[in-house]
Amino acid sequence: MPTLIKNANEVITLKGDRKGPRTKEAMKEIGIIKNGSILIDQDQIVAVGTLEEIQREHPQLAMDAEVIDAAGKIVMPGLVDCHTHLVHGGTRENEFNMRLNGFTYMEIMNAGGGIHSTTKSTRQASFEDLYEKTFNHLNEFLKYGVTTVEAKSGYGLDWENEKKQLEVAKKLQETHVIDIVSTFMGAHAVPIDYKGREDEFVDIIINQMLPKVAEENLAEFNDVFCEKGVFTPEQSRKILEVGKLYGLTPKIHADEIEPYEGAELAAEVGAISAEHLLVASDEGIRKMAEAGTIAVLLPGTAFFLRAPFARGRLMIDEGVPVAISTDFNPGSSPTISLPFIMNLACMNMGLTLEEVLTATTVNAAYAINRGDQIGSLEKGKKADILVLNVANYKQLQYYYGMNHTHIVVKNGKVVLKDGVFQ
Amino acid sequence: MPTLIKNANEVITLKGDRKGPRTKEAMKEIGIIKNGSILIDQDQIVAVGTLEEIQREHPQLAMDAEVIDAAGKIVMPGLVDCHTHLVHGGTRENEFNMRLNGFTYMEIMNAGGGIHSTTKSTRQASFEDLYEKTFNHLNEFLKYGVTTVEAKSGYGLDWENEKKQLEVAKKLQETHVIDIVSTFMGAHAVPIDYKGREDEFVDIIINQMLPKVAEENLAEFNDVFCEKGVFTPEQSRKILEVGKLYGLTPKIHADEIEPYEGAELAAEVGAISAEHLLVASDEGIRKMAEAGTIAVLLPGTAFFLRAPFARGRLMIDEGVPVAISTDFNPGSSPTISLPFIMNLACMNMGLTLEEVLTATTVNAAYAINRGDQIGSLEKGKKADILVLNVANYKQLQYYYGMNHTHIVVKNGKVVLKDGVFQ
Ligand SMILES: [Zn+2]
Ligand SMILES: [Zn+2]
Repeated sequence: MPTLIKNANEVITLKGDRKGPRTKEAMKEIGIIKNGSILIDQDQIVAVGTLEEIQREHPQLAMDAEVIDAAGKIVMPGLVDCHTHLVHGGTRENEFNMRLNGFTYMEIMNAGGGIHSTTKSTRQASFEDLYEKTFNHLNEFLKYGVTTVEAKSGYGLDWENEKKQLEVAKKLQETHVIDIVSTFMGAHAVPIDYKGREDEFVDIIINQMLPKVAEENLAEFNDVFCEKGVFTPEQSRKILEVGKLYGLTPKIHADEIEPYEGAELAAEVGAISAEHLLVASDEGIRKMAEAGTIAVLLPGTAFFLRAPFARGRLMIDEGVPVAISTDFNPGSSPTISLPFIMNLACMNMGLTLEEVLTATTVNAAYAINRGDQIGSLEKGKKADILVLNVANYKQLQYYYGMNHTHIVVKNGKVVLKDGVFQ
Repeated sequence: MPTLIKNANEVITLKGDRKGPRTKEAMKEIGIIKNGSILIDQDQIVAVGTLEEIQREHPQLAMDAEVIDAAGKIVMPGLVDCHTHLVHGGTRENEFNMRLNGFTYMEIMNAGGGIHSTTKSTRQASFEDLYEKTFNHLNEFLKYGVTTVEAKSGYGLDWENEKKQLEVAKKLQETHVIDIVSTFMGAHAVPIDYKGREDEFVDIIINQMLPKVAEENLAEFNDVFCEKGVFTPEQSRKILEVGKLYGLTPKIHADEIEPYEGAELAAEVGAISAEHLLVASDEGIRKMAEAGTIAVLLPGTAFFLRAPFARGRLMIDEGVPVAISTDFNPGSSPTISLPFIMNLACMNMGLTLEEVLTATTVNAAYAINRGDQIGSLEKGKKADILVLNVANYKQLQYYYGMNHTHIVVKNGKVVLKDGVFQ
């Protein structure tokens, strides 16, 4: 049955003039249709415009359609969360509490905290445990209006457990209504038992894991944590270049804690995106702009770790296409609320109300190579659509810290209304 | 029918050893009962303990009770939002957008922004308009687990409209399930037409408004915005002292923008609380601690205005009882999410996970003189209770930016479940 969402105060289409991620002024052009409507058939958008236009062009479909009255509300594309560590075991609220109480990094590590605790929990968890935990997290994502989630492996750090994470994501792509896009991140950390033998672990990733990821078709992207004490730019480059030979598109966790020319590397290897970039250099930012590398910024992580925020304002001004994401993970950003992350991007990173919408829809879609299918409301795109309980798009950030999701349409169907799954 | 909430992972009772707002170490004692249960009859709490204890002490009631299974979840008192400007006309997202885009205070004022725009909207709104708008806001508060809200007037700034605001609050206290506690705040701003004649306006408050507030029983508290360019400490003292003669307990918006000895004044006039305190002096903080004045801190306002946060950590260490609130208002804090404000208090004000719970329950209740009725889970108190979708209290702040409210029990009845009104 077709669906007609009608008479929204504003339909925020995010439809641009050209293909590709948006930069500079184009990030502000969010394509508002006042008193707008959308016609959906099957899982696709058939038409976007005023009710009269739609009824004139598609009289039969419009007549047959189930109607959603969006009067007084706004409509926009489903949110795309383009950077998460979705599949993981355990929680780390005790470590968080220690941090709030002033314990040092080393004290927390000695108490069993840090990334290796998540590796341990993830290894211990069965496929079913991980599947169920992640299914519940995806339900939460849907409540906050997220319809597509990127999911990185990287808490297994051996093939058996990396594979388990990737297969949980693959199964969820089949069973959960949210779309999942998989990234292999064997190079998320050096396993404890490879300390001092980092190059050996890099060789395992290159010679053993990457071929299997490709062979079993478990991921589209290949990500590396390029950071002092983790993987060097040289090791990172090697992993990403070999991944490319297997058809995996590079991504890179770059310049998060110490400047390490990660942004530069991302531009040089042709990464689709570089993530974090809290301390990216001016030169790195310029190179990303030239190369068209998308900056995936994660203000929640800065908020949660009480670190300085990435220079999102500068990056946009310099011409870098910017996307914004939760970085959902149990250590440094345990939130699922992309709407709140959008607040942070405005308040603490200097993005405008329009830029933050572009950054979480169309640019986020391009960051996971889905820009041709999702991220904007236009004819032929997938019908992933939100109806929101606000009178205009400015109120999304104005009424801060809140979840304004009213209806989630996913693949053309109403899957959530007022927090209740349909 | 009695109700039994049973087998919560943790019941956070907030029951203290002594009456009165909590200070210092007592702010950290949140009274956790592991695997705890609560028995409710009528609108009151009958017993709090383990299921076995409750069944032994109240066999008949426990047998007759409707059961809420809280396994895997936590239970705590309903949140108390002790500082809001609840009843107001209009919204100010355009002004917010101008601010994000770098417009100056004067440019915003010239474009019709600022507090006077809310005064205009509030004066123009009918009683019914304000009633309906505020009713909807209260529904939102309930979704975020807030069961009691303080409501200040102060956007009328003439008797007719101050009265209208207070009467809307009074009517809502009768019709909406949330409890509303009223504060008269005629001294919220100097009306435009009294510019340069501030003392005349003070006289109107003292001679005309305060007697009527008391006579018509429209408020319990009397609040003043003591700030450079608004009301001087002398004018503030006068208004508060006269209010006391009419039985109105003083509150004071103190030291928000410039240090003005507002904290000192609060202690001297015996205010129940001083609010904001972003730039309160060391001396003022010491005086508040001595006098037992509650500091009502509003981290959302600092976040939204990108101002420095109040020194909450220092205040607690100095012995001031601290409460935390949204400051819900259309200009400087348009959020209803007290859970998010709690995140900010931890991340940006240095409160511990335990302190922030005390600050939004028992201390907030004392800040509006309801400490004997609400704010903790103990025999004889009102059954305002939350069941939350987290496994332990630390996860409330760990899973930041999210609303974890599962069930709201108000006056002994389940009024909300999974976002749906019952
Ligand atoms: Zn990450
Ligand atoms: Zn206020």
